[in-house]
Amino acid sequence: MHTLAELQRIVDERIETLEMPDFPVELYEPIRYTLGLGGKRLRPALCLMGADMVGGHALDALDPAIGIEVFHNFTLIHDDIMDEAPLRRNKPTVYKKWNSTIAILSGDVMFAMAGKLISEAPAQVLKEVLDVYHKNAIHVCEGQQIDMNFEGLDDVQLDEYEQMIRLKTAVLLGAALQIGALCGGGSSETAKTIYEAGCLLGLAFQLQDDVLDVFGDPDKFGKLPGGDILCNKKTWLPLRARQKANPEELNELQHWYSGKGFNPDEKVKAVTSLFNRLNIREDAIAEMERYFQRAMTLLDETAIPQERLAPLKAFASQLLVREV
Amino acid sequence: MHTLAELQRIVDERIETLEMPDFPVELYEPIRYTLGLGGKRLRPALCLMGADMVGGHALDALDPAIGIEVFHNFTLIHDDIMDEAPLRRNKPTVYKKWNSTIAILSGDVMFAMAGKLISEAPAQVLKEVLDVYHKNAIHVCEGQQIDMNFEGLDDVQLDEYEQMIRLKTAVLLGAALQIGALCGGGSSETAKTIYEAGCLLGLAFQLQDDVLDVFGDPDKFGKLPGGDILCNKKTWLPLRARQKANPEELNELQHWYSGKGFNPDEKVKAVTSLFNRLNIREDAIAEMERYFQRAMTLLDETAIPQERLAPLKAFASQLLVREV
Repeated sequence: MHTLAELQRIVDERIETLEMPDFPVELYEPIRYTLGLGGKRLRPALCLMGADMVGGHALDALDPAIGIEVFHNFTLIHDDIMDEAPLRRNKPTVYKKWNSTIAILSGDVMFAMAGKLISEAPAQVLKEVLDVYHKNAIHVCEGQQIDMNFEGLDDVQLDEYEQMIRLKTAVLLGAALQIGALCGGGSSETAKTIYEAGCLLGLAFQLQDDVLDVFGDPDKFGKLPGGDILCNKKTWLPLRARQKANPEELNELQHWYSGKGFNPDEKVKAVTSLFNRLNIREDAIAEMERYFQRAMTLLDETAIPQERLAPLKAFASQLLVREV
Repeated sequence: MHTLAELQRIVDERIETLEMPDFPVELYEPIRYTLGLGGKRLRPALCLMGADMVGGHALDALDPAIGIEVFHNFTLIHDDIMDEAPLRRNKPTVYKKWNSTIAILSGDVMFAMAGKLISEAPAQVLKEVLDVYHKNAIHVCEGQQIDMNFEGLDDVQLDEYEQMIRLKTAVLLGAALQIGALCGGGSSETAKTIYEAGCLLGLAFQLQDDVLDVFGDPDKFGKLPGGDILCNKKTWLPLRARQKANPEELNELQHWYSGKGFNPDEKVKAVTSLFNRLNIREDAIAEMERYFQRAMTLLDETAIPQERLAPLKAFASQLLVREV
């Protein structure tokens, strides 16, 4: 078993030694840049934990773990083009720093590199690992498309939103754990249960992101609150608010979410105040907690002893900042 | 052994039965559209031939063959965005018919589908097949980047051009044959030799495309000659012309290839006439023939009996229209 810090160090070291040609520089410089932006390395850490959990060797899952991280970063590069996002981790996105063409093609190369790394899974589970990887890679693309479709829709329902974030972000966390468990010698059944638990944790993390975007402490999270509100993003919070609002509150919500040219501070304050009146933050935290508990229950239903489950449980618990 | 027509029918039937979800429609409609545009199915036919050649079962290579075709079509969708190409096989390209966002994301899904199909290779060669696939998928992206870099360069050399088309188009033909041979039970060594032969054939086919673009019979090839000349494309022909030109001819070449606002007919006629004076067509056909013969020699050096080599030799020979 490894501590989280050990796992993250193993991941960072392996990323630094990734074989990366120098030519053509237009392709490989953006890849080095993207992988060098850092981040929590959440997905590869989960993958290595999956191998540890079932009593296997974390290093047997190392290249697949890095493959998942490279895949995740590829999706960020392409998503940033589609979403016209100028910044990622406070640095210019690839398509802004270079251009869309380079962002498309260096993303494609990363997707190929990801497949190559996933293929380093132990031979006896290679096919099963590839099936999990491809199924979920397709889901992530589907989730991104559904998310973009939401922008043009007026009547997105809360369950549709949860289905979208399940595809777009949660399944890759599940797949990371499942692939790790398979590489570590876990049974197919156990690995599937761990996958479901990972998806539930992914949903909880995304809900937390939605809450923090509105209610997070700017000093702690390094950005001003209300970014999602300002771009009229249909996250869990406004969708839940719409369910609970009376006709007058509904009008107010629609006013802020459909109009343009508002004073940003005024808009964020007004919407946040409406969320407060409707207890949306409490609802979101309760929903997050339900996801978390369902994940814990699933883990307890496997044959894995508690001491092997402990690191993942502690990790997930630590990531969910309940006091927001 | 199968005839070429049989192999193409097998490929088309399998493409029609590919599992394709209906939702989200924005992703899967462009994929159905792209795969439905048809084409010669050259790469999957070569893959099945590879399995036949080594005495294996073509059907063992079927899903990987389709995977290579799906990969090829994914690269076309992304290339068309980067090259701003409005038409492909006389139909609107995906990014024109829908938009760039949909073209990026449906391309990404096809890349994932391709990997899934490749993973259906027989278990005993799965890792080797994946290694061949990923290495060459990365090469194809590198080739596209180098091709785009050429647009902004004034001094591209003929050997650099040949290296570019090797990466961008030839290696995938080689990989198709190699993967087929591996799936059919051929030895790693034989499969590698077949790969090299496929790359050489790919170079010959691309040279032929370059020649046909200038000298092809419009009635036979369905498009007006000189498209590459009009967009100042640095194909084998102008690069070879620059090698042979005297200072006066070099000036003429640079005049037509650097200026703008020329009458199209006049430009195509003038450049074609210069190519004729320098015997560029004959040089290109001779080079094409050299590639073809080197491919045949490599095939003869394998332990594969002539009767098993015959279909590929006949196919390649038939694709190279020497009378241009």
